[in-house]
Amino acid sequence: MTVRHILIRVAYDGSAYHGWQLQDNGITVEEELNRALSDLFGEEITVDGGSRTDAGVHAKDNVALFSTGSPVRIPAEKLPFALNRRLPADIRVTSGCEVGEDFHPRHCDSVKTYEYRILNSPLQDPLRRHVTTWYHQKLDAERMAEAARVLTGEHDFTSFCSVHAQSTTRVRTIHDIRVSREDDEIRIRVSGNGFLYNMVRIIAGTLMEVGAGRLEASAMQGILEAKDRGAAGPTAPPEGLCLLEYRFGKWEEHHADQLDRKS
Amino acid sequence: MTVRHILIRVAYDGSAYHGWQLQDNGITVEEELNRALSDLFGEEITVDGGSRTDAGVHAKDNVALFSTGSPVRIPAEKLPFALNRRLPADIRVTSGCEVGEDFHPRHCDSVKTYEYRILNSPLQDPLRRHVTTWYHQKLDAERMAEAARVLTGEHDFTSFCSVHAQSTTRVRTIHDIRVSREDDEIRIRVSGNGFLYNMVRIIAGTLMEVGAGRLEASAMQGILEAKDRGAAGPTAPPEGLCLLEYRFGKWEEHHADQLDRKS
Repeated sequence: MTVRHILIRVAYDGSAYHGWQLQDNGITVEEELNRALSDLFGEEITVDGGSRTDAGVHAKDNVALFSTGSPVRIPAEKLPFALNRRLPADIRVTSGCEVGEDFHPRHCDSVKTYEYRILNSPLQDPLRRHVTTWYHQKLDAERMAEAARVLTGEHDFTSFCSVHAQSTTRVRTIHDIRVSREDDEIRIRVSGNGFLYNMVRIIAGTLMEVGAGRLEASAMQGILEAKDRGAAGPTAPPEGLCLLEYRFGKWEEHHADQLDRKS
Repeated sequence: MTVRHILIRVAYDGSAYHGWQLQDNGITVEEELNRALSDLFGEEITVDGGSRTDAGVHAKDNVALFSTGSPVRIPAEKLPFALNRRLPADIRVTSGCEVGEDFHPRHCDSVKTYEYRILNSPLQDPLRRHVTTWYHQKLDAERMAEAARVLTGEHDFTSFCSVHAQSTTRVRTIHDIRVSREDDEIRIRVSGNGFLYNMVRIIAGTLMEVGAGRLEASAMQGILEAKDRGAAGPTAPPEGLCLLEYRFGKWEEHHADQLDRKS
């Protein structure tokens, strides 16, 4: 019996979930995936998630890895069809591919891109209430963009990390961070090799303080250097956050043929 | 006691509602507005809606008129604040203004603009599942645009009207109709002086037949002239439809000072 190792890509509306990771007190995305996979393969399957998003956070492209020795030999690329029939409408598997035994999403030189959407309008929009964070006071996107630039590169991001985080090192690399406005929406897009617990939401919360004029853009350097969570702004709410893309850098370049990305 | 006549503008996510109009078998947008207004003014208030949208259809800018002789003399422009505290999160009042006794939203030379959004992708997107209609087969937006052009102008739209409609005349004027694609989304935007029951959804359903290649773009002229509901395509699902804008033409030009539009 050969064991197969399979990587799936997953999109979800996180509104109804207590985040990705299994919990006792609420339903999670991981739990739904485990249930659908176990049902399909006829054995207990547990996924290992790429990004363990918080309650209420969305994803267009998260990843999960699992192994199976099941006699059900469904080709990996057929998994979206087979799994989506077994999943609720707010979770969709968008692709599947076989990977080598030594592959692990969090050991690769992965690049994750998150987007934080702010509805910056005097009034809430019912149609975007689950996918944006509403901020009624006028925000200056250019000041926010200026402040954000300081964060690019390799830094100790302790100031932008929840005090509840368990990571041993707080050093991460932000490859790119952009703030742009389109009509009544401000979007913060940030990509990097990894993010600490609540890091994107604390960055967003701090940039909103800058945009609202309660912090100078020039204060960002000092906040970063303080290496103190208390120096940064509040943790912005989860509903504005979405994991847009999860890429595997060099591994992906060398295995492009294996990857069937639909997103 | 002076009776005031007040026009409010309303945005809503129609997903949870059995449409606009009061019904016995489910909660409606009108019911929620009546409840919030009656609570605020301390008397029973019933609104008269501009567009009685179907179950599952959304609005960014519908209108409703009501009258009150209540001693609660809250200024019309403060109504969004006072009402939104009394409304569920999926309904927002966006503005209020006093109008004359003879004003009626459906008697004015109003212009309504609807948008129909189609997610045209092999896979459903959980984050847009409530605000787009998913169509997995590739659609040709240019063919759809070509077919749509035939509909511009004053016509008898019987072919694009539900057989359950009660309108005495089926003649309406479409001022403009556009079909455009942006990435994986096709948007049909149509404005006119009035729309028959299910008219935009039947237009959308017919254009999707054209986009999928099951109907020629040139067939549209014959469908229109047939004045027969059976000649057109199916009624497209409600979730892709949104009332974008409700304007009052000449009345609005002459009363611009009264109108406090936030949308």
